[in-house]
Amino acid sequence: MPATYVSLPEPLKRVKALIFDVFGTLVDWRTSIAREAELALGPQGIETDWLAFADAWRAQYQPAMEEVRSGRLPFSKLDALHRRNLDVVLKDLGLAQVDEATRVQLNLAWHRLDAWPDVSAGLQALRPAFLLAPCSNGNIAIMVNLARRNHLPWDAILGAEVARDYKPKRVVYTASAESLNLQPHEVMMVAAHSFDLEAAAEAGLRTAFVARPDEYGPGTGEPAATCPVDVSASSLLELAQQLNPSPPIPPMQ
Amino acid sequence: MPATYVSLPEPLKRVKALIFDVFGTLVDWRTSIAREAELALGPQGIETDWLAFADAWRAQYQPAMEEVRSGRLPFSKLDALHRRNLDVVLKDLGLAQVDEATRVQLNLAWHRLDAWPDVSAGLQALRPAFLLAPCSNGNIAIMVNLARRNHLPWDAILGAEVARDYKPKRVVYTASAESLNLQPHEVMMVAAHSFDLEAAAEAGLRTAFVARPDEYGPGTGEPAATCPVDVSASSLLELAQQLNPSPPIPPMQ
Repeated sequence: MPATYVSLPEPLKRVKALIFDVFGTLVDWRTSIAREAELALGPQGIETDWLAFADAWRAQYQPAMEEVRSGRLPFSKLDALHRRNLDVVLKDLGLAQVDEATRVQLNLAWHRLDAWPDVSAGLQALRPAFLLAPCSNGNIAIMVNLARRNHLPWDAILGAEVARDYKPKRVVYTASAESLNLQPHEVMMVAAHSFDLEAAAEAGLRTAFVARPDEYGPGTGEPAATCPVDVSASSLLELAQQLNPSPPIPPMQ
Repeated sequence: MPATYVSLPEPLKRVKALIFDVFGTLVDWRTSIAREAELALGPQGIETDWLAFADAWRAQYQPAMEEVRSGRLPFSKLDALHRRNLDVVLKDLGLAQVDEATRVQLNLAWHRLDAWPDVSAGLQALRPAFLLAPCSNGNIAIMVNLARRNHLPWDAILGAEVARDYKPKRVVYTASAESLNLQPHEVMMVAAHSFDLEAAAEAGLRTAFVARPDEYGPGTGEPAATCPVDVSASSLLELAQQLNPSPPIPPMQ
């Protein structure tokens, strides 16, 4: 007697690749940045609320990308925007004395973020059935370093740097599908943020919401998508279970 | 008494990433294409010299890319150039009757190439010490499928599609280094073809020649580089030995 299972809806059976938002969805940027900032600035005698420091740095993120999305700035990769934002934050916090070498090192904090606990195992569970790639606004070098640190088994690094623009601009989603030789409806965007999924759906992609309720501190993240999505899950492992409803194929005799 | 070993020259100690030519250097395109062509066309009653078919298809490769390099054609990915070249070859061989569906399938032969026997183990041996990426004229989807088929542990997929131009144009090498946030001299290009290594060296990269004497049939490949290179090896495993001359670090007590 085979295990009971629910068949996937027809459109989801055509999904061949999953592409992922990274900051917030796969990695806990907030506590990681707080830790890295304390490690970089604490030994210089600086004392501050390190989580508030992380929040202040992140608060500059969307405005900086909007300069590129609007066409006011040519595309530059997120490492460069992070650095410009860091200078603003240090000035705002009265820390203008921090030297250049420290700023260069601290900017690499975004390369040293820790994944949420389910992520590596969840991606490994999804890998036999789907191509996997980040579709992040982070640049390739950030994605490569996060993957090495957290054992993320990517097939390719897609997203803003390849598309030369920032999400939620439509081209970032469509360029990611094109890079894999897939139609938009054959690709599913996975994110913890409704604005990202809404834009992906408008570009023709399938969508999966993964809840990250602690992204900005306990109980602050979106508990559920505020737009229609194809799948919702509380972790990547649960997403893997939902997308692999068939019983495993028995081994060959 | 530690094992005897030779220290690396100072410039090679600064190499942080290895980027690889793929067709010929990592994969045996010739016998793979011959096999795939026979699988696709043989059942339709077509008989021909399948290795000659592979050679004829490959002979169209450089002229097609030259259209892009010269600026006469806008960038289009290699899958599109391969398809245009396939149509030329089928016409030249008097096989114009081959239908559209067969051509579409046959064009995917370039996604189903087999690696030389040392490649997967060689890349695994290099991976602890270096970031690894293809720097191929093949597009991202080809690279992703070749990696899945042959267990190639890439950190990212770099090369022509990311740079929007074809090797040996300088931008393809420099864009690959930039994507990894590295200076050209921190990146080593690995290839079985002197023209590729010569162009990489001119762009400031380090270079490694790996001999593939059977690329175009037994004894037809370059036995040695015809330009100065930093390292020469007969396989990726030998390359790994040359680039990791230090004795292994003893495990922590």
